[in-house]
Amino acid sequence: MSGGILVLVGAGPGDPELLTLKAIKELNKADVILYDSLVNTQVFNLLETNPELVFVGKRKGLDSISQEAINDLILLYLGRGLRVVRLKGGDPLFLARGIEELELASKHSFPCEIVPGLTSGLASASLGAFSLTKRGASQAVLLSTAHELSPELIDLWNSVLVSGSTLVLYMGLSNVVKLCAILAQSQGLDCPAAAISAGSLENEKIIFANLETLPQLIIDRALVSPALIYLGKNLYQADLQVPVADLVMNQLIK
Amino acid sequence: MSGGILVLVGAGPGDPELLTLKAIKELNKADVILYDSLVNTQVFNLLETNPELVFVGKRKGLDSISQEAINDLILLYLGRGLRVVRLKGGDPLFLARGIEELELASKHSFPCEIVPGLTSGLASASLGAFSLTKRGASQAVLLSTAHELSPELIDLWNSVLVSGSTLVLYMGLSNVVKLCAILAQSQGLDCPAAAISAGSLENEKIIFANLETLPQLIIDRALVSPALIYLGKNLYQADLQVPVADLVMNQLIK
Repeated sequence: MSGGILVLVGAGPGDPELLTLKAIKELNKADVILYDSLVNTQVFNLLETNPELVFVGKRKGLDSISQEAINDLILLYLGRGLRVVRLKGGDPLFLARGIEELELASKHSFPCEIVPGLTSGLASASLGAFSLTKRGASQAVLLSTAHELSPELIDLWNSVLVSGSTLVLYMGLSNVVKLCAILAQSQGLDCPAAAISAGSLENEKIIFANLETLPQLIIDRALVSPALIYLGKNLYQADLQVPVADLVMNQLIK
Repeated sequence: MSGGILVLVGAGPGDPELLTLKAIKELNKADVILYDSLVNTQVFNLLETNPELVFVGKRKGLDSISQEAINDLILLYLGRGLRVVRLKGGDPLFLARGIEELELASKHSFPCEIVPGLTSGLASASLGAFSLTKRGASQAVLLSTAHELSPELIDLWNSVLVSGSTLVLYMGLSNVVKLCAILAQSQGLDCPAAAISAGSLENEKIIFANLETLPQLIIDRALVSPALIYLGKNLYQADLQVPVADLVMNQLIK
């Protein structure tokens, strides 16, 4: 029971070219790659080797593999002495369950390596020419999940917004109507608000609007999960000569 | 005055292998690369072409080039019709001045492209096997600068810490004694606190301690800027079989 090694690798926001050099190197060294539903399978076209590819994605509301079953698979392959790459969208440890998988392997005495990846909340914002901070006015950004709203979480978001800092919300699309309404009570309807789906991919959609108009624009433009939501009075999109993407600029904001 | 194009590229936390495939492609296509002091110049060893390399780093307290002079240089090269890569440590738009440079080029009718990079605050944490969030307990992370402390900023940090979320502080090393003392008043001396310098590089140093012990350990281990500081009651480091780096585990935390 030795020789196995677990390598956690981040696949970034979606564009295969946004994998790191190290990620590609690790994919090419892998015996088996266990990959999530957020991973763009076009990354496998970049491989020069032929590792076993195993889909272990979890999808909300669909029959899907449990974390326990993923853990069993990881141990099975490690026990065979294989080099196991666990490929996750974004960064493998940020808002993922990478830590659990690392500790599982470690508990069974298998060594681990980690290759960080671009988290979609920041990468998509940069690709959309969003400025999340503003010199002298806002020096902080809160990255938060938003699939479950609680009074404590809303309080935290309000504290961040009142300070002039920006919210970057993951998994918030199903709550967007409610959260825009709640946050407008303290921030006003004209507080800048934006959404990005399929960031970095050809079907990327970017909406830059405000707390009043964002929910309807999301419906009109048919944005689907996974998407990022951005909010804050200092949130700003650079006015570029060449539009960076499929872009809606709300005239109320401009 | 046409033909010039500005490409903002993120160099990531330091390890040249943590550049993206797209970043390398853009560096190879560049006529000239204007690079910052946080960029590891070993990335240039990866190039297959021979672009002009221009250091435009700004270093605190040292004579260095002004943003105005950088802007003039960018316009000079763009005006010659060159493909200008502006290479910045981390992500080119996050806590950098990428937006200003984009808008400058755009104002003069030059097109722009953006290649996001790994921000050191998250990448270094992942490499150190840090867990910044905890399912069911903390779902958010605040990325903040810390080179200037203000009562408003301290209030924001306290709100984030009270919620159970984690702080990731950039540029905070010169304020670490003061900020640990202030935050200990609300969080207690045993609140987990960590620091990473030279994340992803061979001389990487990682300290995992608490608000009481972190400042002295930083001195003892001779951490220098740029460094990241991590704080929060749910901050946690995976217990790996194979240490991921030059590691100090504080017995009070374990």
